[in-house]
Amino acid sequence: MTLVTSDPLILINYKTYLEATGKKSVELSRTIEKIGRDIGVNVAVAPQFCDIAHVAAQVEIPVFAQHVDPVLPGASTGHVLADSVKAAGASGSLLNHSERLLRLADLEKAVSLVREIGLTSIVCAGNAYSASAVSVLRPDMVAIEPPELIGSGRAVSKEQPEVVTQSVKEIRRVNSEVKILCGAGVSTGDDVYASLKLGAQGVLVASALVKSNHPDVVIADFCNAVRRFEEEHR
Amino acid sequence: MTLVTSDPLILINYKTYLEATGKKSVELSRTIEKIGRDIGVNVAVAPQFCDIAHVAAQVEIPVFAQHVDPVLPGASTGHVLADSVKAAGASGSLLNHSERLLRLADLEKAVSLVREIGLTSIVCAGNAYSASAVSVLRPDMVAIEPPELIGSGRAVSKEQPEVVTQSVKEIRRVNSEVKILCGAGVSTGDDVYASLKLGAQGVLVASALVKSNHPDVVIADFCNAVRRFEEEHR
Amino acid sequence: MTLVTSDPLILINYKTYLEATGKKSVELSRTIEKIGRDIGVNVAVAPQFCDIAHVAAQVEIPVFAQHVDPVLPGASTGHVLADSVKAAGASGSLLNHSERLLRLADLEKAVSLVREIGLTSIVCAGNAYSASAVSVLRPDMVAIEPPELIGSGRAVSKEQPEVVTQSVKEIRRVNSEVKILCGAGVSTGDDVYASLKLGAQGVLVASALVKSNHPDVVIADFCNAVRRFEEEHR
Amino acid sequence: MTLVTSDPLILINYKTYLEATGKKSVELSRTIEKIGRDIGVNVAVAPQFCDIAHVAAQVEIPVFAQHVDPVLPGASTGHVLADSVKAAGASGSLLNHSERLLRLADLEKAVSLVREIGLTSIVCAGNAYSASAVSVLRPDMVAIEPPELIGSGRAVSKEQPEVVTQSVKEIRRVNSEVKILCGAGVSTGDDVYASLKLGAQGVLVASALVKSNHPDVVIADFCNAVRRFEEEHR
Repeated sequence: MTLVTSDPLILINYKTYLEATGKKSVELSRTIEKIGRDIGVNVAVAPQFCDIAHVAAQVEIPVFAQHVDPVLPGASTGHVLADSVKAAGASGSLLNHSERLLRLADLEKAVSLVREIGLTSIVCAGNAYSASAVSVLRPDMVAIEPPELIGSGRAVSKEQPEVVTQSVKEIRRVNSEVKILCGAGVSTGDDVYASLKLGAQGVLVASALVKSNHPDVVIADFCNAVRRFEEEHR
Repeated sequence: MTLVTSDPLILINYKTYLEATGKKSVELSRTIEKIGRDIGVNVAVAPQFCDIAHVAAQVEIPVFAQHVDPVLPGASTGHVLADSVKAAGASGSLLNHSERLLRLADLEKAVSLVREIGLTSIVCAGNAYSASAVSVLRPDMVAIEPPELIGSGRAVSKEQPEVVTQSVKEIRRVNSEVKILCGAGVSTGDDVYASLKLGAQGVLVASALVKSNHPDVVIADFCNAVRRFEEEHR
Repeated sequence: MTLVTSDPLILINYKTYLEATGKKSVELSRTIEKIGRDIGVNVAVAPQFCDIAHVAAQVEIPVFAQHVDPVLPGASTGHVLADSVKAAGASGSLLNHSERLLRLADLEKAVSLVREIGLTSIVCAGNAYSASAVSVLRPDMVAIEPPELIGSGRAVSKEQPEVVTQSVKEIRRVNSEVKILCGAGVSTGDDVYASLKLGAQGVLVASALVKSNHPDVVIADFCNAVRRFEEEHR
Repeated sequence: MTLVTSDPLILINYKTYLEATGKKSVELSRTIEKIGRDIGVNVAVAPQFCDIAHVAAQVEIPVFAQHVDPVLPGASTGHVLADSVKAAGASGSLLNHSERLLRLADLEKAVSLVREIGLTSIVCAGNAYSASAVSVLRPDMVAIEPPELIGSGRAVSKEQPEVVTQSVKEIRRVNSEVKILCGAGVSTGDDVYASLKLGAQGVLVASALVKSNHPDVVIADFCNAVRRFEEEHR
């Protein structure tokens, strides 16, 4: 499956929420897969390390790790090896999320390692300059997330639309191919629509869906917004 | 199953070795379980995060995580939640391995979190003073591993026996109950025997077994040494 | 000068406050020295690294670094070498402050390095168990500071007196000699008095003095409280 | 003084070498200043934090910190505040040296903080992609240093000239103004000459000069190489 297409992507980050830990991570992934398929929109999930194997065995949508360490196979107790993530069935990994920041030298190494074993890399950045800097490292995707809006319920696409547009502009100065996601506070279909309108090719979402009592309704709302955007802009 | 008994324990740390990644982690665990059972010695394994679920589903010996992060359920992307490790079937976790050192405040928090959800904690330390300091935090087990001997093939029980005896002494000054393991360079049954003779109640082993072409022979050698010690000292 | 006596100590941590940066660090230190001397109480200061040399050249009270790194002389660009701190005139260093936490292995190393070159070590800890654990490393002093009260204006000696008494008890179980300070939120002479009453031999203070418009009044208030305690308890 | 000119710069990093700690840092800086002035080449030094004030008071050449932390004035015990470095007399700071790597988000913040208070930033990077990524953050200078050659005595300009030329090319794709230094293993005047020939506008040097018994001879050799290059290429 080619993950990096021009089609919009909705990626759900499960973080360390209990609502998406263990068996619940599998159930939630099935729900997301089903609705994404029904509405015809690309969806993907990023469960915790311990849940990757079970989730990947139960769904066909792409499964991402939330992080990998910049280590090679060997004596790295307690670290997350890219090969291990791949063996468990992941298609790729988030890197440098604002809750798991990497030193630049380690990020550069991690992007390379992930690329070399055929996984997809999604590097997060908190502002336009950082987003442009990480794009130089040639990841497959960049996700712009102003840290102060993460989990706030106030969507970056509404609260700080200029961060998205400026990021898109700065990223394109140095990298014409990387797929651009945006996130932080994305809570409704309207937020998703606004993100795409601002130039993003997808969204990174977490609490608004994972902590919802009706995740099926939320993911449907997101997917319908993508379809609406696509129909208006094809 | 009560992990913390007075019976000697052989714990195999898989680190990030490819020889114990993915399917190979399950096969190796089965081998270790079978031989431990046949010879009648307590054995346990510490696979990578992504492999815990499959390993724990296939063997009945205790499965440990190699690390957990000092985080509560919530917004901690890319971190290892104790609840997640438990949901995957682990019985406990290594903490503060010399390849994954923790800040003292985080270690204290991690030991508490692990205890609160009913997992067994094994805290590593590189010398007698550090081992004594971590024992104050009341983990279930302490593992003494001088970092310079890890992976060296030169066993701490032979090269630096005084580190083990001094550690046992310093640990007992502050904690009379914690189970004491030792590791670093442990490669043969004689090393295991020497460790027990010096006052340890078990060993932490990695490369000598995981990277061996005949792990079954190595674990049998280790287990037989434990039996020999027990027969001589009962 | 013997820093570690049984006499109470008031140590002022300048943190990175602009009110105590550059020339202001020297002026503030002179004020603290003068009033400490006038009232007859041991006072000491911990300015920023770049200010140690000027402060130490202008006052005779003990000057502490706020941190040193666990590195030996050599290729450690950007790190704080204990020898450098000593050459600048410092008498010792804070270690493991909650705003500059150290990994346990590094803390053990730093305490040793500092001891070896004849500097005084003051290791901070956030609760009773951590305080007891660091006392095993045999620092000269331990400072108990619950992180949630630091800078709060609510003194640990009033808000969580049991943390101080429990810490004193746990520390004394493993170390009968280490000098015990307490801090976090200490704002008035009454807070200082309460700290000594609870069993501490001194206090660690920062914002209440450094950010005050009248630091001379604040330090006098603190010193008078110490004198009052001493007169009542000699 | 305008630090960022097109004239070549020789920057000496004192690291934590005892040969350049305390009083010795002042003496060494005087030697470097004198010879740089005599030969007519731009030289600068980066002493340890505790030595910045004395060095800056005794010489007129630019003095750099080896690191600053991405913190604002306030409650950041044990951190290096940019304002503090400036108050001590520094003209700027190295950032992200391979011995003091920063997380990308922190590096972005540190470059901004340093710029805002009028200091010069020199960001280090270990390879061409990282060097290009940091150039996006618009520091005043970038220093390319392959970590494996640092302190090796084998100069990057001889051992890996393609790293320098590729870095220059990648950096210029995204930033046409940043001054480019190179370092790692630079030991002789020929190494300096080769660096300039490859497109660098200066060098970052440490052990070859600081640990030499005749630093005056070494710096003279470096300066003469710069003059030779300038005469041939004006």
